[in-house]
Amino acid sequence: MSLAPSAYMADDSDIVARVLDGEHGAIARMLTQVERRTPAVNDLLAALHHATGRAHVVGVTGPAGSGKSTLVAGLAAAYRRTGRSLGILAVDPSSVITGGAILGDRIRMSDLGSDPDVFIRSMATRGALGGLSRAVLDGVSVLDAAGMDVVILETVGVGQAEVDVISVAQTIAVVSVPGLGDEVQAIKAGLLEIADIHVVNKSDRPGADRTVAEIRDVVRHSPHREGQWKVPIQQTVASSHEGIDDLMRIFDDHAAWLAGNGARTDSHRRNAATRIRWAAEELVLGRFRTGDTAFDAAVETVVSRQSDPVSAARKLIAGPIANC
Amino acid sequence: MSLAPSAYMADDSDIVARVLDGEHGAIARMLTQVERRTPAVNDLLAALHHATGRAHVVGVTGPAGSGKSTLVAGLAAAYRRTGRSLGILAVDPSSVITGGAILGDRIRMSDLGSDPDVFIRSMATRGALGGLSRAVLDGVSVLDAAGMDVVILETVGVGQAEVDVISVAQTIAVVSVPGLGDEVQAIKAGLLEIADIHVVNKSDRPGADRTVAEIRDVVRHSPHREGQWKVPIQQTVASSHEGIDDLMRIFDDHAAWLAGNGARTDSHRRNAATRIRWAAEELVLGRFRTGDTAFDAAVETVVSRQSDPVSAARKLIAGPIANC
Repeated sequence: MSLAPSAYMADDSDIVARVLDGEHGAIARMLTQVERRTPAVNDLLAALHHATGRAHVVGVTGPAGSGKSTLVAGLAAAYRRTGRSLGILAVDPSSVITGGAILGDRIRMSDLGSDPDVFIRSMATRGALGGLSRAVLDGVSVLDAAGMDVVILETVGVGQAEVDVISVAQTIAVVSVPGLGDEVQAIKAGLLEIADIHVVNKSDRPGADRTVAEIRDVVRHSPHREGQWKVPIQQTVASSHEGIDDLMRIFDDHAAWLAGNGARTDSHRRNAATRIRWAAEELVLGRFRTGDTAFDAAVETVVSRQSDPVSAARKLIAGPIANC
Repeated sequence: MSLAPSAYMADDSDIVARVLDGEHGAIARMLTQVERRTPAVNDLLAALHHATGRAHVVGVTGPAGSGKSTLVAGLAAAYRRTGRSLGILAVDPSSVITGGAILGDRIRMSDLGSDPDVFIRSMATRGALGGLSRAVLDGVSVLDAAGMDVVILETVGVGQAEVDVISVAQTIAVVSVPGLGDEVQAIKAGLLEIADIHVVNKSDRPGADRTVAEIRDVVRHSPHREGQWKVPIQQTVASSHEGIDDLMRIFDDHAAWLAGNGARTDSHRRNAATRIRWAAEELVLGRFRTGDTAFDAAVETVVSRQSDPVSAARKLIAGPIANC
């Protein structure tokens, strides 16, 4: 005897209403749908869309060992002291084998774990159909629609994937630590142009002044982003909560600057453009599927070398026009 | 005084003819265009398409330290002894920072380096616009059009990216080595279902029999792929050329089996379907660009929450039909 699968499944008929109410269980199930790119996910996200665009999305990135998780935990506590609700997405784009599984363990925020106004989630890399950046952007929308005042995106690792993911954020903090060698300096260079705020964590370590001076030197020689925002450098010791409140205030300053300057709308515009493109891709490619008569015929012309892939695609796209 | 940039640039007006002639310099430049996804690349690939579909594409994959490069060098020499020409693409999908640069150094095939019938190339990961799998599939087409009898794809590392890349091949060899722990066994499991041939390299090491027995056990409990091909296990000692000629013969057997069985055409069909989809994606998304009046208007409806991304995309796609 076995239980029917439905016995294990939550009733998701009112998942949209529950997410809008900020119910953690519903948010978690919706994020799973986002990761798995279920057939229903487009409609669900469309139904949430009207409630999005309110959260301040903060990205925190930097190399392994820079103490980002402790920093994010400290930030979360600081935000809570101001009465704001928050969602945290921890993403590890580089990890293929472990996915986000280990990350969940890494974030040790036991004092926040039971707070109904804090939602924490690790996003798995491997299961994210349609790409990690897409899952992250959709995940941020879910937390935004759920009424979170602040969404913190934490990425682990350094590389193009991390840059892609963190670019979803409106405010990006790049974390460094004193005493790292040349290799990390090079990595920092890759992240430099996307930083709105530099954080030198573990600033009680020897060499902190030198790290600050080095970053200041690079910032000074960089062109200003969007004309005006002056990229600050904030020193922190996350393990003893030093500098964390100041860092949160800088994030708030940046949010205010974005709003006053129109840059916040620019960021919404960029994200909207990306989402429309992804949706179009999905809609168009839905017709380009084995089993579709026209598509299968096109494949045969390419296999037999009567046509090449680009010409075949052009003909298929033109199809609906010719039919009307 | 400085030389005009054109002084450094090769004349590429006849690059298609030169690739078809198998000229190494032209193949190299064409592969650079493929990696960078230049505006001309679609037309160039279309012009080469008629000459493709002849090469036998062999994939060699397995964990780091399994001696794949030495194995591939040995295979190359074996193929050359049968008079066949070959192209080798070495791909490292996991490496974000180094790209394929180090791989080129790793392949030490000095005796083959000057052979006009052997073309060797590392494919950079980072520079590959439009995705690595696309660059690899297009790269294989270029070598195929250039008249290579055999194309060997070597991937370094293990994970979904490697599985995606190696799936371009018609014949896939998964390399193991004796004496690896549980971690690698798990990895092997991920590659297992795509293996047409298992290779146990460094078979002079202690534990080789056990590794062979373990793989045999897993193969025995797997469903047969495509009904009939019985996945063989070949032991090799690549460093002393043992088992390499036998391995090449197995590859030839598999190619013959594919051809006799219709599976070779299936593989061509799969690749053609993928290419048509990619081309369609590129053609459609070309219209979904900031600066396009209709697209910009759609973005505004999404930012103002009058519409959601999927509905906006649907309207844009329907646009051309409504216009005619």
